[in-house]
Amino acid sequence: MKMIVAVVQDKDSSHLSQALVENGFRATKLASTGGFLKAGNTTFMIGVEDEKVDDVLAVIKDNCQSRKQMMAPMSPMGGNADSYVPYPVDVQVGGATVFILPVDRFEQF
Amino acid sequence: MKMIVAVVQDKDSSHLSQALVENGFRATKLASTGGFLKAGNTTFMIGVEDEKVDDVLAVIKDNCQSRKQMMAPMSPMGGNADSYVPYPVDVQVGGATVFILPVDRFEQF
Amino acid sequence: MKMIVAVVQDKDSSHLSQALVENGFRATKLASTGGFLKAGNTTFMIGVEDEKVDDVLAVIKDNCQSRKQMMAPMSPMGGNADSYVPYPVDVQVGGATVFILPVDRFEQF
Ligand code: NI
Ligand code: NI
Ligand code: NI
Repeated sequence: MKMIVAVVQDKDSSHLSQALVENGFRATKLASTGGFLKAGNTTFMIGVEDEKVDDVLAVIKDNCQSRKQMMAPMSPMGGNADSYVPYPVDVQVGGATVFILPVDRFEQF
Repeated sequence: MKMIVAVVQDKDSSHLSQALVENGFRATKLASTGGFLKAGNTTFMIGVEDEKVDDVLAVIKDNCQSRKQMMAPMSPMGGNADSYVPYPVDVQVGGATVFILPVDRFEQF
Repeated sequence: MKMIVAVVQDKDSSHLSQALVENGFRATKLASTGGFLKAGNTTFMIGVEDEKVDDVLAVIKDNCQSRKQMMAPMSPMGGNADSYVPYPVDVQVGGATVFILPVDRFEQF
């Protein structure tokens, strides 16, 4: 058995939760901040049999992979007019940092 | 040394905390949601020597074991009157999902 | 690779965060309570190559080591006047409890 610890952006968190459930995996979510990813993030703990690790990783990749996203220009009213870019820009969003930890023993009560 | 990671229902969390202290074990609690158990839950991290793992598991089992609990009928005022059951029902509460992880090294500063 | 799990007092948390960033380490912070340390605490998860573990431990020790701190006497207005100590006292603050866990595999998406 393995424990998969995945740190993902908050914006991908609910889609990942749902996809894990749909694929029959059970996860616990821990509130987390900063660090591996810049924006607010969520840490998922998922316990799985060794032969299912790649299936879980595929679900995480499908839902959280780092990607470019078009972002509408911010109103110059909100910030510094000097840094105002009057056209949509591509920003990097998503991404997941995943650790697969060995588990010595698993119990359910 | 091992790190015991236990996901338990919030309702059992304070009894487990107290029982761990009474038995001389130190735990850190992480706020967690969803996943292994349906209701709000708490994740305990407990560091122990290998020969104490079974003692900690016994404390967790004593305080968190899945059990039936009589639940008073809800007032039909609160919800759908069609689903109102006018007598107490047994519901499943509690339960713990526990991972025992190997620890390579332990330090205290 | 290792996952370093460090439980530190909240008061040392922001200094440790900053020091980790300055030294090129990336950490995820989990909100945690009680347990290993009496006051409110924060749990850091830090993923590092094996040969960097001691560097991370040095940063944690530098920023969180248990130490004595002079504490101004509390106003007797706030509590029990019987226990009022009208001179500054040394109190123990800080401290870190650190687990180094083996990592089987690491992925980034
Ligand atoms: Ni959506
Ligand atoms: Ni009670
Ligand atoms: Ni400061």
